[in-house]
Amino acid sequence: MAGRGRGRPRDSGISERALAAARELLVQRGFDATTIQAVAERAGVHASALYRRWPSRIELIEEATFPGLSPQAVHPTGNLRDDLLRFVRAYTEAFSQPAARASAVGLLAHHQTSRRTHPPELYLRISARPQFQDILSAAPPGSVDPDLDANDAFTMLLSAVLAHTLLANTATQHLTPECIVEMTLRILRPSWPGPL
Amino acid sequence: MAGRGRGRPRDSGISERALAAARELLVQRGFDATTIQAVAERAGVHASALYRRWPSRIELIEEATFPGLSPQAVHPTGNLRDDLLRFVRAYTEAFSQPAARASAVGLLAHHQTSRRTHPPELYLRISARPQFQDILSAAPPGSVDPDLDANDAFTMLLSAVLAHTLLANTATQHLTPECIVEMTLRILRPSWPGPL
Repeated sequence: MAGRGRGRPRDSGISERALAAARELLVQRGFDATTIQAVAERAGVHASALYRRWPSRIELIEEATFPGLSPQAVHPTGNLRDDLLRFVRAYTEAFSQPAARASAVGLLAHHQTSRRTHPPELYLRISARPQFQDILSAAPPGSVDPDLDANDAFTMLLSAVLAHTLLANTATQHLTPECIVEMTLRILRPSWPGPL
Repeated sequence: MAGRGRGRPRDSGISERALAAARELLVQRGFDATTIQAVAERAGVHASALYRRWPSRIELIEEATFPGLSPQAVHPTGNLRDDLLRFVRAYTEAFSQPAARASAVGLLAHHQTSRRTHPPELYLRISARPQFQDILSAAPPGSVDPDLDANDAFTMLLSAVLAHTLLANTATQHLTPECIVEMTLRILRPSWPGPL
């Protein structure tokens, strides 16, 4: 809170400056060029200050590009279709930011080769499963199959959002947020005849 | 046909040797090292012979690593669940081959930067939509919602297979072929009450 004053740039947090510098570098120079040293130079801080905050550039880039969804984007109203649409739109928008687009493939490549250390953290970062669960909990009775594992439905939604973002203009150009929501609603609906 | 004799290596097709060499290079040395020149050297052919067959290494790598599904993997029997399971397993297996895993992220990165030329071809290559449509057509009446756009269901399935393969061990470790099939069946089932 105390560091938020606009008039005194030196007081603004080192972390915030580093995260902003990382986003700029990703967009302007790409994933490979976004090193700790380059971020430090652009942010005007010592590299050692960044290493105190992040173990490597990977964690810094992940925090810079996948900050999570804003609370108002996911606060459920009880209208399942509307809530899911706001959720998927916010999700797609977050993944479509220039810095996120510039880092996504690099992060995937990194995690494919050093799989053991980081992926769970990245997954927690890109996963909005608790918010999805909140939306389902607020839905009217009978609109969500109680026998369904919400986890499975969420992962289908996440896969569609990722594919829509990573494969934009190709495989998934028709996989709009509206379409993802319709498919998710089909997954969620109770079986016929219902199990109850 | 004439070139298939095993006893005369010089008669075996240049294309087949180049595709095999590309797969070896991808697995052993990675995407960046799999250049036309490196493939030519390993296959024992002239680079010019490869350029006559493929415009660039990208098309060569795509053909080497995403050859399509085998016909027996997708020939429908009329049992929708079994057919989908064989289909998703064959799909997942194709994407999980070492050479495909080694090329997938590199291809994604390439297509993110030069989006206009190649993606449709890659999409045709990774898309098994006609086979999916064949499976739906063979399903018993009433098991597939006639109002559903099969295209949307297929893209959800493809997204899940891609996420399962690219994000293996992380976001989607529970997204097994069995789980993808259950989710696809939920998407496909007719609405209640039925529209007819």
